[in-house]
Amino acid sequence: MKKLAIGVDIGGINTAFGLVDENGDMYGESVVSTKKFPYFDQYPAYIDELCEGIKILLRGVDFEYELVGIGIGAPLANHYEGILDNPSNLWKWRETDDASGSRILHIVDDIKKQFGGVKVVMTNDANAAAIGEMMYGGAKGMSDFVVVTLGTGLGGGIVANGKLVYGHDSFAGELGHIIVEKGGRLCGCGRRGCLETYVSATGIRRTVSMLLAERNDPSELRDIPFNQLDSLMITQAAERNDPIALAAYEYTGRVLGEALADVVTLNSPEAIFLFGGLAKAGRFIFEPTKKYMEDAMLFIFKDKVKLLPSSIDGKNAAILGASALVWQNDEK
Amino acid sequence: MKKLAIGVDIGGINTAFGLVDENGDMYGESVVSTKKFPYFDQYPAYIDELCEGIKILLRGVDFEYELVGIGIGAPLANHYEGILDNPSNLWKWRETDDASGSRILHIVDDIKKQFGGVKVVMTNDANAAAIGEMMYGGAKGMSDFVVVTLGTGLGGGIVANGKLVYGHDSFAGELGHIIVEKGGRLCGCGRRGCLETYVSATGIRRTVSMLLAERNDPSELRDIPFNQLDSLMITQAAERNDPIALAAYEYTGRVLGEALADVVTLNSPEAIFLFGGLAKAGRFIFEPTKKYMEDAMLFIFKDKVKLLPSSIDGKNAAILGASALVWQNDEK
Repeated sequence: MKKLAIGVDIGGINTAFGLVDENGDMYGESVVSTKKFPYFDQYPAYIDELCEGIKILLRGVDFEYELVGIGIGAPLANHYEGILDNPSNLWKWRETDDASGSRILHIVDDIKKQFGGVKVVMTNDANAAAIGEMMYGGAKGMSDFVVVTLGTGLGGGIVANGKLVYGHDSFAGELGHIIVEKGGRLCGCGRRGCLETYVSATGIRRTVSMLLAERNDPSELRDIPFNQLDSLMITQAAERNDPIALAAYEYTGRVLGEALADVVTLNSPEAIFLFGGLAKAGRFIFEPTKKYMEDAMLFIFKDKVKLLPSSIDGKNAAILGASALVWQNDEK
Repeated sequence: MKKLAIGVDIGGINTAFGLVDENGDMYGESVVSTKKFPYFDQYPAYIDELCEGIKILLRGVDFEYELVGIGIGAPLANHYEGILDNPSNLWKWRETDDASGSRILHIVDDIKKQFGGVKVVMTNDANAAAIGEMMYGGAKGMSDFVVVTLGTGLGGGIVANGKLVYGHDSFAGELGHIIVEKGGRLCGCGRRGCLETYVSATGIRRTVSMLLAERNDPSELRDIPFNQLDSLMITQAAERNDPIALAAYEYTGRVLGEALADVVTLNSPEAIFLFGGLAKAGRFIFEPTKKYMEDAMLFIFKDKVKLLPSSIDGKNAAILGASALVWQNDEK
């Protein structure tokens, strides 16, 4: 009988979910709105709608199967406790709410209840991407590797000895928040110089802005307001040899490459996978990143570590990654 | 029947070894000279002398026991292959030697042969210290922690999910070589700004020298030549409120604390243990390190991570650490 897992990707706008087998083949997917339920007191209704959506998807399966479990990817998820602690990016607390109310959402237990106690596991998006890469993608058979997710921010999933490194509180792998420049760019976390302020969709936008200020080269990027600039525009400009766009990728690759050299010094992975928007810039990001990583590398690690594009990256990657959690045996 | 392990610590001057049980109790120890055999072609004679020394130690045991295995700690040891690859810090190649000869020493196999195939395992000193801390010391029962060894250089042993992080080539954990200051102090590895050029016995000596240049405070350290200065002298001066000595520890603690904040961001350990010479400076090193680590920490990790002195640190620590390898089940 075919074994199936559900992968659920909880985002601020939508929650996408799908049915996946052990090979990473998808047997249907669907979506419910997250933002339809903006407040904490609407969270139970959100869970009902999500579970109903999953059940509808399952009813559509026209072959015999065993549901092995449900894997969930969500920002700042606590893997060990199966909770989200005050996820203000997903649900808001209102002034009219009871101030003493709990802002801890027991997502794993709440979903488990509606599925007769089936295995439910949750982690953050970058960790899910790493497990997806190991289960279905280019990291199959690797014991030690790192996945870097390049979105609005920068996330990391570190695998050592064949297991995801969660750390003692389940929050390990926050690669976007290692400090790469003391007193550098202000980060959303309140500190300065975090990697993700340089290397991410928003990071490269800041870099373009910096270069426009520092340099006099003509550039098509001088006609685009900061708020409208995205990494695809920068890539397209780079393809037309725009000097600012090329310099922005060179700069981004240097910061990322030097940071990855330190990650290698600590973890010595077999490969590092780049995942997400910026990784789609191809050679513009891979070439400088690889060059500066190797230049910065401690001699014992030189020319050993592969820098690769994620092979599960695509529209279903987040669902795939979340579903992959189910096949892991990593209860604490 | 009591189970015993042999711990062997291979250093440039001496090789110390001892008999240890599962609780970390020692049942005898001994030493052979490493530097008596300075050249590669003397390595077989060295192995014979070491194995003979171990056998003499075993013959002295006056109760029934089972020898479970031999654990070895050596600089830059390759754990997976059980070899040392051109260990020029231990054995020298002579111009008169056959240039095509192998400089790879199969220490694990060579010792195993002399002990009838008993389990023999090798790793580097800092990793051995981490496993010793987990087996006999303050990390007992912890799944995620880091040991920082502060000697002439700085070593690291990272444990995640209850297993030492060796990385794909067994060289992970080189914490002393993360770059903390771009273009900073020249390191023995040929790069600039490595953590160990600031935080180690030699690092703090360089810091004292820098402070003597930058500042005008009177200091007893102004009367000691660079080459004679050691961390004990700096600690004793700090105890007498010497302003340069105090500032040197403050500076060292800042560099270490900020680096550890990044390690926490990646690995989220439950505790970080400081081991070795500099750690003996007590509050002079622990207080600034803790303060700057917490100041630099990403909010989700603040006030969660313990900074502790190693509890196996002492004259037998290296033997204890090496012996602890034997009780691990971590064959690749």
